[in-house]
Parts: sequence; C-alpha cells; structure tokens
Amino acid sequence: MRVLGIDPGTVVTGWGIVTFNDRQFYHIANGCIRTKSQSPLPERLGSIFAALSHIIQEHRPNQASVEEVFISRNVQSALKLGHARGVAIAAINQAGLPVHEYSALQVKKSVVGYGRAEKGQVQEMVRLLLSLPKIAPEDASDALAAAMCHINHASPMTLAKEHRQ
Amino acid sequence: MRVLGIDPGTVVTGWGIVTFNDRQFYHIANGCIRTKSQSPLPERLGSIFAALSHIIQEHRPNQASVEEVFISRNVQSALKLGHARGVAIAAINQAGLPVHEYSALQVKKSVVGYGRAEKGQVQEMVRLLLSLPKIAPEDASDALAAAMCHINHASPMTLAKEHRQ
Repeated sequence: MRVLGIDPGTVVTGWGIVTFNDRQFYHIANGCIRTKSQSPLPERLGSIFAALSHIIQEHRPNQASVEEVFISRNVQSALKLGHARGVAIAAINQAGLPVHEYSALQVKKSVVGYGRAEKGQVQEMVRLLLSLPKIAPEDASDALAAAMCHINHASPMTLAKEHRQ
Repeated sequence: MRVLGIDPGTVVTGWGIVTFNDRQFYHIANGCIRTKSQSPLPERLGSIFAALSHIIQEHRPNQASVEEVFISRNVQSALKLGHARGVAIAAINQAGLPVHEYSALQVKKSVVGYGRAEKGQVQEMVRLLLSLPKIAPEDASDALAAAMCHINHASPMTLAKEHRQ
C-alpha cells in the first residue's frame, strides 16, 4: 500500500507519501504546493491540480487520504477552502486513485494516540514514526499523518494481500 | 468571442456557450452536468472535471465566465459549493481558457437590465436574447447569462478584433 495524504489549502497544499511493509511505515516523499497569493484564483486552482497530477505520476501512490474538514469560522473561508479541497480531490480521482476521508480526530489519534494533540506533537510524532531527519512543515506533516491514518484503517487482509503482490 | 458560462454546483453544474457577432448573441449549446447524489464526493467532483473538459474540447470556447458567489446560508453549504466551483474553475484553467468572474448583480443586469430580477425573468430573457425555442433549465440558463455578461463587459476593441479574425 502506497498512500498519498493531502492537506489542501488555497495558499499551501501539503502532500506526503507513505508505504507500509513488515509492520513498518516508510516515508517516500513530502512537500508543499504553494500558490502565489497575488495570482488570480483560476491560476492558483489550476496549479494545485497540475502539481498534484504530476506528484501522482511521479510517485505512483495507489490510495489517497484526506482529512475531513470542520470549519466553524466563516462562510467565506469555507468557500475558499472548499475550492482548493475540491480541486485536490478531483485531481486524485482523475488520476484513478480512490480517495478516503478521515476526521481530524481519527488522523491525530492514528499518529499521536490522542485526538486533541497539539500541532507540534503531530509534527514530532510524524517525524519519529517515519524516521525523518527533521520535522516536516506543518501542512506536509498533516498530509503524512492522513496517509498513515489510512494505513491504520486498512484491514490486515488488504495489507497482507498487498504484501504478497 | 466564444464564451463558456458556468453555474457550478455539487449536484447540478449548468453550462452554456454563446458567441457574439454583428451585435447579436448566438446560442451554441447548453446543458446540465448532473452528479448522482448517492455517489461518493470524489467521483462527483471527478465527473464535473471530466464533463467540463469534454465540453470545452467539443465546443472550443475561448473565454469563460462564472458568477461570483455570495452565500449567507451556512458554512457546510459554502464548503460544498466551494468544492464544485473550485473543480469547475480548475478544469477551465487546465484547458487553457481565461476565467472571468462577475457578481450576481452584474450577471442579472446584463440580461434583464435590473439587478434584482427573479429567477423566472432571467430564464425568459435568456430565452429571448438567444432565440431559444423554450426556456433552458435554471442552471443552464444562469450559465448562459454569465456568458452573455462577459460579452457585455468585453471592450468594443476586443470584439472588433475578434470579428476580423
């Protein structure tokens, strides 16, 4: 199982790819897609789509995982985040990958074992679980956590089957 | 000038294509992209992306127009609409077309001459301006109105230049 995790945003979209083998997570790659805040919206959304399509083509994940969003702030920020999240999900779907959604609670629990973990704790646990030399940027770290969350939720049978392939 | 207007939505995305020649609007095509409400979100967003890409390839518009959204309802519906709108805008951007945004007031004014027009008035005026045999469905009608709005806002020089081509 080779999972692409994403943490979408109009300004920064974090992504990370994790595999699982012999009961161990392996870090493949991570990064942030940054769009220029002065660029028009269509260009920013187009660049998120193009960058994700490119990342999928390069790293060939076979599953994708994204955090469900819960926004209590305001309607305009929900609409903005929706734009970026919709584009990211469509890019993954158009690349032929299944997309799985997990709540923020599930994602945090799967790396920190505690749903109300602070941002810094998540980053540090992601670093430890994946043996990264240093902590990944916040958005990339959240994306890697989403990927590991999906692996944790995959059935042992799925993992065993993939292992044999 | 051959303009694609869109009215995005998670359930129905209206689209319409209008040209302008000799001070006259011409209707090329219109329709609604409907997604199955029981389908998972990634499939629905993927199908909006794929359908719009197909429509652009088939009808070759060179400009696109979309209404700005103003939502006062709630955060969850803003997020949902944002997903669909983001995907539609990214699909147009990836097809190489410039996307222009107009307020609902501008769109209504450009077909009805009155910013607070009722839905039915917009549909009827779109029908009259484009000599349609019958009124188009609401979402397709709004999309055609957005396309005409962009033509109305194009400079006479742009239109003259395009006419010479």
